[in-house]
Amino acid sequence: MNGLLEQLRAGLPAEALTTDPDVIASYAHDMASFCDAGTPAVVVLPRTVEQVQHVMRTATALRVPVVPQGARTGLSGAANACDDCIVLSLVKMDRILEISPVDRIAVVEPGVINAVLSRAVNEHGLYYPPDPSSWEMCTIGGNIGTASGGLCCVKYGVTAEYVLGLEVVLADGRLLTTGRRTAKGVAGYDLTRLFVGSEGSLGIVVKAVLALKPRPPQQLVLAAEFPSAATACEAICRIMERGHTPSLLELMDRTTVHAVNRMANMGLPDTTEALLLAAFDTPDPSADLAAVAELCTTAGATEVVPAEDAAESEMLLQARRMSLTALETVKSATMIDDVCVPRSKLGAMLEGTVAVAEKYDLTIGVCAHAGDGNTHPVVCFDHTDADESRRARESFDEIMALGLELGGTITGEHGVGVLKKEWLARELGEVSVELHRGIKQAFDPLGLLNPGKVF
Amino acid sequence: MNGLLEQLRAGLPAEALTTDPDVIASYAHDMASFCDAGTPAVVVLPRTVEQVQHVMRTATALRVPVVPQGARTGLSGAANACDDCIVLSLVKMDRILEISPVDRIAVVEPGVINAVLSRAVNEHGLYYPPDPSSWEMCTIGGNIGTASGGLCCVKYGVTAEYVLGLEVVLADGRLLTTGRRTAKGVAGYDLTRLFVGSEGSLGIVVKAVLALKPRPPQQLVLAAEFPSAATACEAICRIMERGHTPSLLELMDRTTVHAVNRMANMGLPDTTEALLLAAFDTPDPSADLAAVAELCTTAGATEVVPAEDAAESEMLLQARRMSLTALETVKSATMIDDVCVPRSKLGAMLEGTVAVAEKYDLTIGVCAHAGDGNTHPVVCFDHTDADESRRARESFDEIMALGLELGGTITGEHGVGVLKKEWLARELGEVSVELHRGIKQAFDPLGLLNPGKVF
Repeated sequence: MNGLLEQLRAGLPAEALTTDPDVIASYAHDMASFCDAGTPAVVVLPRTVEQVQHVMRTATALRVPVVPQGARTGLSGAANACDDCIVLSLVKMDRILEISPVDRIAVVEPGVINAVLSRAVNEHGLYYPPDPSSWEMCTIGGNIGTASGGLCCVKYGVTAEYVLGLEVVLADGRLLTTGRRTAKGVAGYDLTRLFVGSEGSLGIVVKAVLALKPRPPQQLVLAAEFPSAATACEAICRIMERGHTPSLLELMDRTTVHAVNRMANMGLPDTTEALLLAAFDTPDPSADLAAVAELCTTAGATEVVPAEDAAESEMLLQARRMSLTALETVKSATMIDDVCVPRSKLGAMLEGTVAVAEKYDLTIGVCAHAGDGNTHPVVCFDHTDADESRRARESFDEIMALGLELGGTITGEHGVGVLKKEWLARELGEVSVELHRGIKQAFDPLGLLNPGKVF
Repeated sequence: MNGLLEQLRAGLPAEALTTDPDVIASYAHDMASFCDAGTPAVVVLPRTVEQVQHVMRTATALRVPVVPQGARTGLSGAANACDDCIVLSLVKMDRILEISPVDRIAVVEPGVINAVLSRAVNEHGLYYPPDPSSWEMCTIGGNIGTASGGLCCVKYGVTAEYVLGLEVVLADGRLLTTGRRTAKGVAGYDLTRLFVGSEGSLGIVVKAVLALKPRPPQQLVLAAEFPSAATACEAICRIMERGHTPSLLELMDRTTVHAVNRMANMGLPDTTEALLLAAFDTPDPSADLAAVAELCTTAGATEVVPAEDAAESEMLLQARRMSLTALETVKSATMIDDVCVPRSKLGAMLEGTVAVAEKYDLTIGVCAHAGDGNTHPVVCFDHTDADESRRARESFDEIMALGLELGGTITGEHGVGVLKKEWLARELGEVSVELHRGIKQAFDPLGLLNPGKVF
């Protein structure tokens, strides 16, 4: 261990390395519940590509595992430390290196915070869409590692669609450049996309070229109350079938609405069974909202309220954004699921989730990126009650099984990490997992990068 | 060889296999000029996944190379046969299996022709954007293999962005499923994107889940004449910088305009130095065209003519679509380049191409997906003239070198194939090529799939 610290110190400034037990403990895990985390040997916070290369060369020389981290806002334990590892935090590499309105790209270091980038490009009339709920805290590097989504995906897609090129420090310290800064390019395999969502298991992203969109008009939000989840899902299907392109299409169930009202007293309709939020950032959002309002009413909405202005719209978005946090206050603990199904199966997914909650006698609140079919069933339980904890875990698994049965995926945007590792093979099949191992072998033959995660 | 045919026949209907020398010769190569092609042992045309699996199992058992093919409209020799190989043509697997307006997906076999799919989804109010110039002939499987682009990319992106999931027969005959039919999903590595653009070197795509968009309004096209390429490029940069989202933004140089007029007598402005086509499929395309017209005029356009209706728009598109074919009539042979640069460097790229043409005393016509920075310099030469042929090849290479120097890529959408294989390492670097080899090893350890292509 002394050898490790000495060798690390040889290529890092003193302040880039810490072994303080309290500090180390605070870097041990991300925001996932109930995922094992070990005790790292050291936390390093490099500021340059060369320093990252030094860390990886040292790790390879001494065969020490490395766990890369962004802001540790992840929800699957992908950033959790393992015992005696090097935690490699990229948060100090936080420079925006370039913003080009003509080329519509930004070049950034991995530690740039999502919201900081979003605001910076906004000043140039540009828009970086991916907006995970943690956007005020999470880093672009973390977003790339987990292929983060958010509220915008129904129109703008996930992080993967905005990563054009990367610089990556490989396990042995070599520097790899992938992709491009052009709008198109098909030279060789798509290594860029291979890194996106690989949860730090293939290399350390140290620079990213990101695609930007022109800044759209301010979006306008509509809220619709439904007497059941089924009628809300019916409205969602009709909205998409008719060719509308909402900039968000979100669902909150009764449990979620109650939780948000309790936490923030936002005056959401407490009696509703399902609250649908739809927004448009089109040239004439009012016209689009009117068309959607009609579809909602036809599907059975009891009340449809378009926001009158940006402030009201923002209030509704705030309510949606705080849903997970609010649901965390229902009981002493939560497990947040992330099952995505074809949107035509959303109704079946929600109905099945209610059945799971009844079967296990638990409160499961659901908020959903409904336009994507991406549900977040939040299992609320008392973690001091052993039986309730067991039921929570079982219900969590049963929700994933239901998602697979409906042609969906165990994770729409939160990733696999530690939390869903055992489920990955069930979704992908053995042939795919074997190919995953082959790829991992090609990039990280010693298995030093984020061991024990994903598969 | 007899062993090969016997074993293939054991799992294929008689009509799915041919050894007729004339037929075999017609399957030897795609539409790339000057790329070596060998003589296949046999051409197989399976109709089912099981038949493809049988072919690959046989190939693996006998160590026979396999060259997968779509419509052979490719421009890089990626579908060229090698000696004694099995040509595996997927054109008979041409069923559209599903179109879902609610989920906005289509599920297709690889032999479906791009235009057939486009028209089929159009009937459901949906839109499959990728539109390579060969769209009336080329197959979706071929589009996936080469990650095809087209005119639409400046707004809608390339094929890669529309492939959600795949079924792939691996080199050893096993069936792999990748990706999903949901809007989002981050379970495991992005194997789907690894196959897109891999030019048949990693597996045989036998089914694809494609994302669809709502059908946009009919686009309206504007044509603008410029006194120089430089002023046209200035206009392009201003259009993109101002946040416009054209559905196409294309450039034809004087040589291209002349060639098209000569071939089809379309009445394009014969005296122009650069003709810019811009289109919008927005709710109010006339307003967008008016704004773009003003930017063109400010940048120096000598005439700006908005199409009056869909028919006029279609005529301009036809002219653009036939550019490559028209340039092929200038001399006895052509080499079509496909260099993509950041759009801010487009002016430098075009200027440099003129210098290359002068240096080598050649006619090089350029048409370009200008909004993407993707140029197609077409080197026209007399292939019976040895010295001119040599100069053509050298100028072709110099154009790629220029593209790399400007921060671009050697191929924006046509792929590497045989044509640019020697250039790939220059763009990617040795570290990347080594990782490519590692991935290839994981998928195709015997090196049977499309050997000698890409890298």
